[in-house]
Amino acid sequence: MIFIAMSPLKAPLPDIMTTHEAKDAMKIEFEPIGFVRTALEKVPRHWTVSEAEGEIVINEEYAGGIKDIKAGQHIVVIFYFHQSARFTPDFLVQTPHHRNESLGVFSICSPVRPNPIGMSIVEVLGVEGRVIRIKGLDMRDGTPVLDIKPATGNGYDAATEK
Amino acid sequence: MIFIAMSPLKAPLPDIMTTHEAKDAMKIEFEPIGFVRTALEKVPRHWTVSEAEGEIVINEEYAGGIKDIKAGQHIVVIFYFHQSARFTPDFLVQTPHHRNESLGVFSICSPVRPNPIGMSIVEVLGVEGRVIRIKGLDMRDGTPVLDIKPATGNGYDAATEK
Repeated sequence: MIFIAMSPLKAPLPDIMTTHEAKDAMKIEFEPIGFVRTALEKVPRHWTVSEAEGEIVINEEYAGGIKDIKAGQHIVVIFYFHQSARFTPDFLVQTPHHRNESLGVFSICSPVRPNPIGMSIVEVLGVEGRVIRIKGLDMRDGTPVLDIKPATGNGYDAATEK
Repeated sequence: MIFIAMSPLKAPLPDIMTTHEAKDAMKIEFEPIGFVRTALEKVPRHWTVSEAEGEIVINEEYAGGIKDIKAGQHIVVIFYFHQSARFTPDFLVQTPHHRNESLGVFSICSPVRPNPIGMSIVEVLGVEGRVIRIKGLDMRDGTPVLDIKPATGNGYDAATEK
């Protein structure tokens, strides 16, 4: 474990771009590294309440990157909500179906968000070739996967990976 | 808590697109919702070992989406590694600086990845206007933020948000 010495924030914080400048300056483009496959027509609404099983099929060019993913561990899956409604300012505050309050979009896990990015932590059941079998999914069949990371911190595999 | 009844995987799994088709079909584009500000020149290498403080400044158009983020909670910050080297197949397997083994890119948190997406869980120190003060960051000053979600599951605020 390495700690880097830090002093409290004293220096003035640097300026950032204004919204307008930032939007002009920056479009960030990603491509799927693979896709979710599941036979389920309806998936649980959130990974914290899911026992659903399925697979992540990694594109051939990236298959070498999953060689150290093992059964029993948890992985963070970052994915694209490819079927969600397009975000408009009306969705800045939403009332989730299962709750009774209006909440800011950054306090809920709705798929309708400024950037439709999902994140789920799932259990690895096994890896065969370029297929990762997973449990606890909440992604629909065909969901494009953008990244996979080891689940670390707060109890997840903290001893082995950081 | 809602469980959806599920039967084991019995149906044949549907086909997915081949790598070639998928790449042609899908470019996914995002824009920053805000930016990280920190006075630190050098940030800790990972949020699990960070006590560093800084801010997330939300773009004006999305400021209404942070109204329910409160001091003391943890948030998941999804961001763009804007200064990392471009991914090539040489980076499918990497040896992290602080470890002594070659690991697949999807088992480590290296910023050099097929899609340079970072994910950190940080503590909220306070919210003022469109600025979220955070502790535990590992992002460099100027890092574009793509999404913020509540940290849920495995001990994080499980009772209040799912």
